[in-house]
Amino acid sequence: MSTDDLPSFADVQTAAKRLLGRATRTPLLHNSFLDEDTGRDVFLKPEMLQLSGSFKFRGAYNRISQLTAEERKSGVIAWSSGNHAQGVAAAAKLEGVRARIVMPEDAPRIKLENTRALGAEVITYDRYSEDREAISYALSERDGGVIVPSFDDAHIIAGQGTAGLEIFEDAAKGGRALDALLICCGGGGLTAGCVLAAEALSPDTAIFCVEPEHYDDHARSLASGERERADTSQPSLCDALLSPTPGAMTFPINQRRLAGGLVVSDAEVKAAMRYAFRVLKLVVEPGGAVALAALLSGKLDSRYQSVAVMLSGGNVDPVLFAKVLGEDA
Amino acid sequence: MSTDDLPSFADVQTAAKRLLGRATRTPLLHNSFLDEDTGRDVFLKPEMLQLSGSFKFRGAYNRISQLTAEERKSGVIAWSSGNHAQGVAAAAKLEGVRARIVMPEDAPRIKLENTRALGAEVITYDRYSEDREAISYALSERDGGVIVPSFDDAHIIAGQGTAGLEIFEDAAKGGRALDALLICCGGGGLTAGCVLAAEALSPDTAIFCVEPEHYDDHARSLASGERERADTSQPSLCDALLSPTPGAMTFPINQRRLAGGLVVSDAEVKAAMRYAFRVLKLVVEPGGAVALAALLSGKLDSRYQSVAVMLSGGNVDPVLFAKVLGEDA
Repeated sequence: MSTDDLPSFADVQTAAKRLLGRATRTPLLHNSFLDEDTGRDVFLKPEMLQLSGSFKFRGAYNRISQLTAEERKSGVIAWSSGNHAQGVAAAAKLEGVRARIVMPEDAPRIKLENTRALGAEVITYDRYSEDREAISYALSERDGGVIVPSFDDAHIIAGQGTAGLEIFEDAAKGGRALDALLICCGGGGLTAGCVLAAEALSPDTAIFCVEPEHYDDHARSLASGERERADTSQPSLCDALLSPTPGAMTFPINQRRLAGGLVVSDAEVKAAMRYAFRVLKLVVEPGGAVALAALLSGKLDSRYQSVAVMLSGGNVDPVLFAKVLGEDA
Repeated sequence: MSTDDLPSFADVQTAAKRLLGRATRTPLLHNSFLDEDTGRDVFLKPEMLQLSGSFKFRGAYNRISQLTAEERKSGVIAWSSGNHAQGVAAAAKLEGVRARIVMPEDAPRIKLENTRALGAEVITYDRYSEDREAISYALSERDGGVIVPSFDDAHIIAGQGTAGLEIFEDAAKGGRALDALLICCGGGGLTAGCVLAAEALSPDTAIFCVEPEHYDDHARSLASGERERADTSQPSLCDALLSPTPGAMTFPINQRRLAGGLVVSDAEVKAAMRYAFRVLKLVVEPGGAVALAALLSGKLDSRYQSVAVMLSGGNVDPVLFAKVLGEDA
């Protein structure tokens, strides 16, 4: 991919203008007991408070708000295990366009239900035997509809980058330099967007992507310099982060700037979810908790004293959430 | 009580200065799907994000930070079913003073555990046969210790009022006039503090206290003009709001300004907790959810279009929280 095609910080700034008054400007939270528990100054970006329950609304709205009058007639099509689905559905609803979402039939129930509740048409498929991209492109060819990719797209990356822009703006307002930023990472779109913001606003901040065990394709790709693949036959609690390989567009951005990749286990993720419930009072889904899990489980070098942590989403089934809480009892 | 003894808005402003950099300035949240679900413009004050998991830290810190050098030596004593306990323990910890808390032995486990985890000494008693105030005063007489009341105290009311001050400041910053403010109400300290802020900053905002069924002593007292008592033999899920009667100091403040009292059932409270989980991604305890419950269950007249809602705390036992989530399944 030519670097000319990659989004820039200016694209993030333009996205921020589009999102103004539509997306929630989530706060940068601080909790002195979390500081004490980790021995650092920690700042949390609670993207579960974003419309649709995750950061995904940002990129989706940035893309959908740019549809032409002609494109609006046939609406949008996306595939997603859940958070991108809800982000696209919410953005399409706000813009008044039709949304069709291709989702695995075993996606978390809350994600299927919420996507439908947002007015989207959900088309389910079997993850093990069917190809969601083929289904989506077939729908688009049959009766129109603009594909909204979940991460490998300049508009999507720029939109997600507004979360990073807000982190660095708010940290600067509070007079805080950030030594490190930990980001939950699946396909790498949120990470890439935050990289663009960091390069412009906080070049000394070390950025780490955080992945679940078995899906550490970014960590390994950063180490090898090539886009490595995860073994997708392995189970993981983090349904939002199961992309098999870094994106063709996100990886060149992330590669030039990331300090490294951290990896956490399901047990560490569940402990972080319980910590968020008990101390922070925030509902965090498994994939949204990996960055906090990395911090709480001591995966980050202690030389990073001032740390921002992305909590990327909170769309977790009540049954699973109750089970995770119960394991602590 | 002479009105000269009552706290003023100036006391709230002074408290805000004391709390700066110690308490969390919780954001004023907005969610357009909540607006859609309620047909209003709704702004949420998420005090579960406050240090100690509820607004109670504000008043406790305002009081404890004013202890004399002599008083600091023997520390503080408080009685509480939980949130005031944790607020006092957290404030005492930050100030480096000893805290002894008299708590019912059947208080929610998370509140007992968190109070101890904050370094306080917990003295348990039997709610049905023992008098917590007598126990507290006996401790104070025996070996010193300043009593920190949970609501009927000018410093406590002024401290809680900083939550209201922030609501009105942030609403004004966003260019929003608030037609109404709904406040979770037990002894009435938070309500009284918010009244002081509203009188100075937003005199046209109608303020409603919200109470759980059977504990509607404020609603009935506002109607009769006298401090009525609740029948405390009745069960309620809202352990944080079981004060039997409005405070001697809080009631004269609230009486002069409240538009009325709203009352919600346990079922409405649980529905609000599930809504907060599913849509808002916030952990709300039963007592912290009554104001949201009143809004969601249609208890507020539709002429109030722009409404701020206090979510006063999130200290809920994981077992109870899981049970409430499960009732939706």
